[in-house]
Amino acid sequence: MKGKLYGVGVGPGDPELITIKAKRIMESAQCIAVPKTSEGKESLALSIARDTVRMNGEIMELVFPMTPDAAILAASWDNAANAICRKLDGGLDVAFLTLGDPTVYSTYAYIHNAVEKMGYEALIIPGIPSFCACAARAGVSLGENNEKIAVIPYAYEPDVLSEVMEKFDSVVLMKVSGNLEKVREILAVKWPGAEIALVSRCGLPGERIYRSLGQVGDGETGYFSTMIIKKGGAA
Amino acid sequence: MKGKLYGVGVGPGDPELITIKAKRIMESAQCIAVPKTSEGKESLALSIARDTVRMNGEIMELVFPMTPDAAILAASWDNAANAICRKLDGGLDVAFLTLGDPTVYSTYAYIHNAVEKMGYEALIIPGIPSFCACAARAGVSLGENNEKIAVIPYAYEPDVLSEVMEKFDSVVLMKVSGNLEKVREILAVKWPGAEIALVSRCGLPGERIYRSLGQVGDGETGYFSTMIIKKGGAA
Repeated sequence: MKGKLYGVGVGPGDPELITIKAKRIMESAQCIAVPKTSEGKESLALSIARDTVRMNGEIMELVFPMTPDAAILAASWDNAANAICRKLDGGLDVAFLTLGDPTVYSTYAYIHNAVEKMGYEALIIPGIPSFCACAARAGVSLGENNEKIAVIPYAYEPDVLSEVMEKFDSVVLMKVSGNLEKVREILAVKWPGAEIALVSRCGLPGERIYRSLGQVGDGETGYFSTMIIKKGGAA
Repeated sequence: MKGKLYGVGVGPGDPELITIKAKRIMESAQCIAVPKTSEGKESLALSIARDTVRMNGEIMELVFPMTPDAAILAASWDNAANAICRKLDGGLDVAFLTLGDPTVYSTYAYIHNAVEKMGYEALIIPGIPSFCACAARAGVSLGENNEKIAVIPYAYEPDVLSEVMEKFDSVVLMKVSGNLEKVREILAVKWPGAEIALVSRCGLPGERIYRSLGQVGDGETGYFSTMIIKKGGAA
């Protein structure tokens, strides 16, 4: 009998934000697939789960380089999917660990589709997405009543913020650190009454929470930075 | 010493989607505040947690009527906040249970702000939001790469979907059941290539998953229905 693939969300950083189900699946899987960006580095998803979850399966490291080169990316996904399918063929259940939630900007989406297409069963175990954890840490609400929420990966099209703010009450900017100056500019000109919460390394060592853009020094926040903007203030 | 208020997300329905932290907070709180819509009814949040979490605190039921009357709503929030503050004054920690995540369309937001304003400490413990669990159950991704995600409470302004679809790759419609006909109409005219996943009662008894609007009978889905629309298809 073939094994099953589980895409398991380990949440944004705090090991206690792992769900009971994610813990159970990771503890019973015979193979733990862990994504990393390069050979030498430790997998962040694995390091979050390691002390809280008693994993018994063999660890299979999968390298997904951080590159804009579509061919290199596609090759890394194919390699990973094939490696996983060989384990499934051997009857092993595979838990693929992923930061946050597997359906929110995760490499797992590609693996899921590829493995399913090859005829295997693949299931998604949700995790706390980073933006919910950031909102919680900052004590702000993402949406109430009839408020509309936009989630924007903010490394691609920074000008879009202005237009999105017209229609949405709350805007979540993922991976915002490279474009803080742009946010500052758009808010100052058009939305001076907006309130922000910026959380860097939420639930990880070195976590920082900012409630004003004036507090943020250049280069102070890193890759794992999420901003929540409440148009009407009262964030 | 005064107690602390914890807004605890119990996730969307499946008791195994409770986090380790939420479980710990619920088990240690001396008072469990449970929202319900009327006196006679059982609290859904409590029923989700009851079998998985060993709660020892006294149960405090708080009634939040489902009404559009702002004065009645505000009075119910005030009453609840005051009742909670009396427990905090007595040195009890209070865990306020909330479906899904406390920062996503939850009554807890009002309670949190009111209690904080009165000078007490209030903390948010994230939960899996319903839309992540729905995406997981349907096996679809909410967003990849540079895709923008919109989350719309779809009981208020159904016409807005058309405009939102212009700018966003993924659209989540919360509480969609009353406006399915409108969605059908907008997609048929302008976005015939879009794919949908509609999940009703995700993780609860009677869960249904639909991958086409043609499959959905009138009145078949209830209050807890969430739809994910992928503009480019391949949901």
